[in-house]
Amino acid sequence: MSKSRAVVLVSGGMDSCVTAAIACIKHDPAFLHINYGQRTERRELKAFNALADHFGIERRLVAELTHLNKIGGSSLTDEKIKISETVPAKLFNPGEKEIPTSYVPFRNANILAAAVSWAEVIGARKIFIGAVEEDSSGYPDCRKQFYKAFDAVIELGTKPETKITIETPVINFKKSEIVLKGKELKAPFELTWSCYKNEDIACGVCESCALRLRAFQAAGIEDPIPYMVKPKYV
Amino acid sequence: MSKSRAVVLVSGGMDSCVTAAIACIKHDPAFLHINYGQRTERRELKAFNALADHFGIERRLVAELTHLNKIGGSSLTDEKIKISETVPAKLFNPGEKEIPTSYVPFRNANILAAAVSWAEVIGARKIFIGAVEEDSSGYPDCRKQFYKAFDAVIELGTKPETKITIETPVINFKKSEIVLKGKELKAPFELTWSCYKNEDIACGVCESCALRLRAFQAAGIEDPIPYMVKPKYV
Repeated sequence: MSKSRAVVLVSGGMDSCVTAAIACIKHDPAFLHINYGQRTERRELKAFNALADHFGIERRLVAELTHLNKIGGSSLTDEKIKISETVPAKLFNPGEKEIPTSYVPFRNANILAAAVSWAEVIGARKIFIGAVEEDSSGYPDCRKQFYKAFDAVIELGTKPETKITIETPVINFKKSEIVLKGKELKAPFELTWSCYKNEDIACGVCESCALRLRAFQAAGIEDPIPYMVKPKYV
Repeated sequence: MSKSRAVVLVSGGMDSCVTAAIACIKHDPAFLHINYGQRTERRELKAFNALADHFGIERRLVAELTHLNKIGGSSLTDEKIKISETVPAKLFNPGEKEIPTSYVPFRNANILAAAVSWAEVIGARKIFIGAVEEDSSGYPDCRKQFYKAFDAVIELGTKPETKITIETPVINFKKSEIVLKGKELKAPFELTWSCYKNEDIACGVCESCALRLRAFQAAGIEDPIPYMVKPKYV
């Protein structure tokens, strides 16, 4: 029996890499990358294509959602807003309500909407996204409830015969568990890019590098990409 | 007291023109236009700017969602799919389940997502959209239920302090009632554009021209824009 088609959102980071490896087990994946005018898009796109090559994906699409850059409101899209150099506060204080400056307003809804449009046209029935709810930055659009609500919007906003649901296979994982799952599935972490600041050598200190290094350190596995500095986060 | 800010989605057609006139009564509007690579975008953008000038709107944004054109699947974005030359079947047969070829897959979710991102950054609490549920093409993403479900996604996918809801003031109107409401509010129909096919003189026979002419004829009001032909639809 042929595998059913799925759209996999691949930013090029470690979570989407492992999500892609999971999606490939049972599905025929089409890879979707989003350029939303983020600072490191050139490097992320390179990682996306390297991952698509690695997984042998022919069907790939880059959607340009550059209105998110025009709109701004995030350190990832507005050079005037400083990128945080620390692990997000909520990892030390689960009651923390402050959303990091790297939150791109309603970004994941924009991304999912594009994914659903593509899925409906190519006949994919699942959309995979590597969101992590608890052990990450605490963005509102990375919560299980958000994806559940979005499933209802898909059901109501597409053709009656269209059946598409969102899959979030790592949403309950600790970041270190994502590393371990990736190791088990031979996910090519060496091809991924996570740094929010640099496009040549990862800085090691921005929020995203901090989360990633902390995850590899907690998993007891060496991160295969080079860093300018490699602080201890666990 | 100063009026509260609202984002108004303005395609440039008659429904968004009247929706904008309604929004202007109680709000301070910011106008958002979407270029999704539709055939008549050049003309629609001209109508958008003419409407924004008319209503004295300084805050305007054009979001480029051209992935919807890359994705295709609609007669509005794919030249290989023929534009229907008739009033949609559902207007004669309410049980009709077939969605017109002009349906752009999940378009309104893409549009709303962009509107919410902008609204969150500029502090708008309402998003106005001129969707019409019954007396139009029968697109799934023009139904009240769809907007209600999207409100839940906004609540969950934005910052805790963000409160944004979608307003659909004409969703239950007949198209002829929209014409009458526009007349009452002195909405500038002469600046609008509805034709799906042409960018110079409206064809008068495409699905969108048919719906518009039918609405003006039912309202007993002369449509102020010129047409190549003007069939009787009522």
